[in-house]
Amino acid sequence: MKIYLAGPDVFLPDAIDIGRRKADICARHHLVGLYPMDNAIDVAAKEASLQIFRGNEAMMNEADAVIANLTPFRGPSADAGTVYELGYMAGRGKLCLGYSNDPSPYVDRVREFTKVTSDEGGLKDALGLTVEDFGLADNLMIIHALDLHGCALVMPRQRPVDTWRDLAAFEICVRLAAARLGVSQPASG
Amino acid sequence: MKIYLAGPDVFLPDAIDIGRRKADICARHHLVGLYPMDNAIDVAAKEASLQIFRGNEAMMNEADAVIANLTPFRGPSADAGTVYELGYMAGRGKLCLGYSNDPSPYVDRVREFTKVTSDEGGLKDALGLTVEDFGLADNLMIIHALDLHGCALVMPRQRPVDTWRDLAAFEICVRLAAARLGVSQPASG
Repeated sequence: MKIYLAGPDVFLPDAIDIGRRKADICARHHLVGLYPMDNAIDVAAKEASLQIFRGNEAMMNEADAVIANLTPFRGPSADAGTVYELGYMAGRGKLCLGYSNDPSPYVDRVREFTKVTSDEGGLKDALGLTVEDFGLADNLMIIHALDLHGCALVMPRQRPVDTWRDLAAFEICVRLAAARLGVSQPASG
Repeated sequence: MKIYLAGPDVFLPDAIDIGRRKADICARHHLVGLYPMDNAIDVAAKEASLQIFRGNEAMMNEADAVIANLTPFRGPSADAGTVYELGYMAGRGKLCLGYSNDPSPYVDRVREFTKVTSDEGGLKDALGLTVEDFGLADNLMIIHALDLHGCALVMPRQRPVDTWRDLAAFEICVRLAAARLGVSQPASG
């Protein structure tokens, strides 16, 4: 069974190494990890971004499940490309899993980003737009997509020292995926 | 034909009015706009967020197309919930359209959010993570999803005075959707 490895990991300076580590963890659980950087792209090509899109979409179509790294990225929410991919996989009826290495509630992260005030209509940001206040880790569409199309968001109790490289929460997702996909596991961990 | 009206418009203080205006524009083009706030939700309910998710997903399943408001929201990218919905609709094989009332390139918006430097590997943010530099308006997955599953992102030449309420770009999407869905239009605009 194949797992699409979505996440802003591809933007890390050691993106290829992280992809290898994730694929190794999948392999230990008898799963095949498909990592976007495995697509051969001619980055000098005029249409490089379109090539990347097509490569990622083909990988998603091939995969049985997605494990999305939903750690907040350049703002209070997860990376937009990763969220798009989670939606795409849910739309295709694939098994959806995700983790975030930042266990803080969405509202707390919005507070770091903009002034949040409260009135009878609830929490508002500096522009007067409502701040979702359901005690969830991110936008409700993301959180409940995982609840209803796979497994609940996996988060560590505390933010790990290296938010972008700690793979403990990722490995829990891999175990959950293997169990849900009915893949037999090694006798001992 | 039915259009799912995705966007952070639901967070505006006048969210219901914006939804009515959008639905009216759809009706003028012989289309039915489905707006998330049309779902009856008991907001006091313990599981309100789950109710909202289920209502939105049912609306998306019912719709033939999506028009997503991809105007940047609390960061350099579009609203996470909207992006999830765009992905879901693409995954379901529905026609995908979107607009943004901010015509600036993604890279310029990242610069407002974090220090961006350049090295031989391209642009990097303050954490050393790559900044996508394809001259696109947002993450390539969003932009090319529109190109390949519908129509190219619609943007005004200049940011309108009221970014959150100007519906000119939205109306262009409605016209495009009507044409692509083969809905006959009134003889005069």
